[in-house]
Amino acid sequence: MRLRELGEFGLIDRIAGQVDGKAGVRLGIGDDAAVLDPSPGQVTLTSTDMLVEEVHFDLSLCDPHSLGRKSLAVNLSDIAAMGGRPRYALLSLAVPPELPVEFLDGFTAGFLEMAARFEVALVGGDTCSSRKGLVIAVTIMGEQSPDRFVPRSGARPGDLIFVTGTLGDSALGLKLLREGERAGGPVERHLDPLPRVREGLALAEAGLPTAMIDVSDGLLADLGHILDLSGVGATVELARLPLSPSFFAQIPRLDDDPYLFPLAGGEDYELLFTAPPDRADAVREALAPFGTPVTTIGEITAAGVRVVGADGNDHPVAARGYNHFSPVD
Amino acid sequence: MRLRELGEFGLIDRIAGQVDGKAGVRLGIGDDAAVLDPSPGQVTLTSTDMLVEEVHFDLSLCDPHSLGRKSLAVNLSDIAAMGGRPRYALLSLAVPPELPVEFLDGFTAGFLEMAARFEVALVGGDTCSSRKGLVIAVTIMGEQSPDRFVPRSGARPGDLIFVTGTLGDSALGLKLLREGERAGGPVERHLDPLPRVREGLALAEAGLPTAMIDVSDGLLADLGHILDLSGVGATVELARLPLSPSFFAQIPRLDDDPYLFPLAGGEDYELLFTAPPDRADAVREALAPFGTPVTTIGEITAAGVRVVGADGNDHPVAARGYNHFSPVD
Repeated sequence: MRLRELGEFGLIDRIAGQVDGKAGVRLGIGDDAAVLDPSPGQVTLTSTDMLVEEVHFDLSLCDPHSLGRKSLAVNLSDIAAMGGRPRYALLSLAVPPELPVEFLDGFTAGFLEMAARFEVALVGGDTCSSRKGLVIAVTIMGEQSPDRFVPRSGARPGDLIFVTGTLGDSALGLKLLREGERAGGPVERHLDPLPRVREGLALAEAGLPTAMIDVSDGLLADLGHILDLSGVGATVELARLPLSPSFFAQIPRLDDDPYLFPLAGGEDYELLFTAPPDRADAVREALAPFGTPVTTIGEITAAGVRVVGADGNDHPVAARGYNHFSPVD
Repeated sequence: MRLRELGEFGLIDRIAGQVDGKAGVRLGIGDDAAVLDPSPGQVTLTSTDMLVEEVHFDLSLCDPHSLGRKSLAVNLSDIAAMGGRPRYALLSLAVPPELPVEFLDGFTAGFLEMAARFEVALVGGDTCSSRKGLVIAVTIMGEQSPDRFVPRSGARPGDLIFVTGTLGDSALGLKLLREGERAGGPVERHLDPLPRVREGLALAEAGLPTAMIDVSDGLLADLGHILDLSGVGATVELARLPLSPSFFAQIPRLDDDPYLFPLAGGEDYELLFTAPPDRADAVREALAPFGTPVTTIGEITAAGVRVVGADGNDHPVAARGYNHFSPVD
């Protein structure tokens, strides 16, 4: 069956029929607007992301189920980066009329699976046709108490720089996908990232990070956002960057500078945050229940950005992340 | 200048630089998520719409300023239809790299002009490149007290059916635009609709509508949503449909059934609502301060939909509104 046969309202009903009622939702899909009960004493956190076919994803390289999960995951990651608790999502799709309904069923199942995992309610959206290519827009809403959410702007000289998990896998995975690989750690990391929602929430509720962001544009680009908004600088130690075993295994095959991936590769969706040195043990304790590795990769300084190699020399910082309008590869 | 030269972050800065701080915004554009203070005792209303080039708009037929205004207006109209007070908006743009920056400046100016008019703060968004065509996604958030917002589901047999303003102008305007006209009432109505925000709010705060929706898909389609969710039927009197003087002036030129425009033409963004007959005077009083006409066009019945002509005979109801995935003209 094609969308042309199902129709716009058929598609909405098909998605709405799979959504469970959730706490806080007074009125969900089906009216002019959703009606939500904000939790008393909490601020609302909200963010939105757009994913465009041939720019953010290639339908020949990803399955619909993973794409559905990832579409919500990248938004959940923004709430995680604020230390917030995600609550509600809105999903808009511009769909080429010839796209099989089975693709959208897989996409929706993946999206709702990710929503259920983090107790997020899908409360609305929009569906329309597209002349060319699938476009996905997701808006996420979350909550946190006003004295606990974590902005990008609080880093202070002397703070340590922490990152969860490992870096560079997603960019490496994309490269391997384009070379024909279809499985393995980096490929899965690219197609199906898991946002660090519980970790961000635990760190925020313990009052630990002075600034936090998720690694979506690449480590140096995202660190740059913290530095710009905090009015500080940083030194990053190359030898400390956390790399996965499957990343190490690929290093001999890489033509490029292997550090380009962890420094400038995007879409790792790890949390990058700063905290005073005397809170380092508390940081590790806060993340221990999740089994999530956390690594100190450098320090906040008064100004400037240095990336220092194991030999103590400055590493040339060629790429500072992916810019959507630049002529990239 | 082209976007390729300005870059993604340049575009974000260019938009963010024009946004004023607003009440309730703890943190606006520039962090992982906006941070908003919900008003005590209010529910949050939220809705989202996507506008796709060549599907919803034709860049050869509209100026960027009007397109910016309309992109927010159609979302404001959803909050108006709930009887809510709009507060915040998120704007995402997928932009073809060759689009002139001047176009986006005009678009942004129009968007922010509409936002200022209804005291809405732009608090976030996303910008990315598109391989083909401009895609605009807007999410709107509003507020209302829990006993005052108006769903689609409350219409009861015996209620009168009201509509603000006039119907059919927007669809007629689109037809005229395609035939080469560039000005006049219907054309302006199509390119630059004004959402009935103040009217919806006044009606809701007076506790008058039992059900409400905005006319975006077409009168019969949108009335159908109220009937479906309320579990009722309706009789609409053709002779009562409110038509504008410029619509009347075009009737002799129309090949089609002229009633097709007010019955099935979309994008009028008028409010369609129901209220008991003994509240009709109160409805007119609530809308009097805005000078907005309001017309009774029929009555809610137990079941079924009838459109009755001046001769008392049933009018054949051919089209029930625009469906995005149907093979339309």
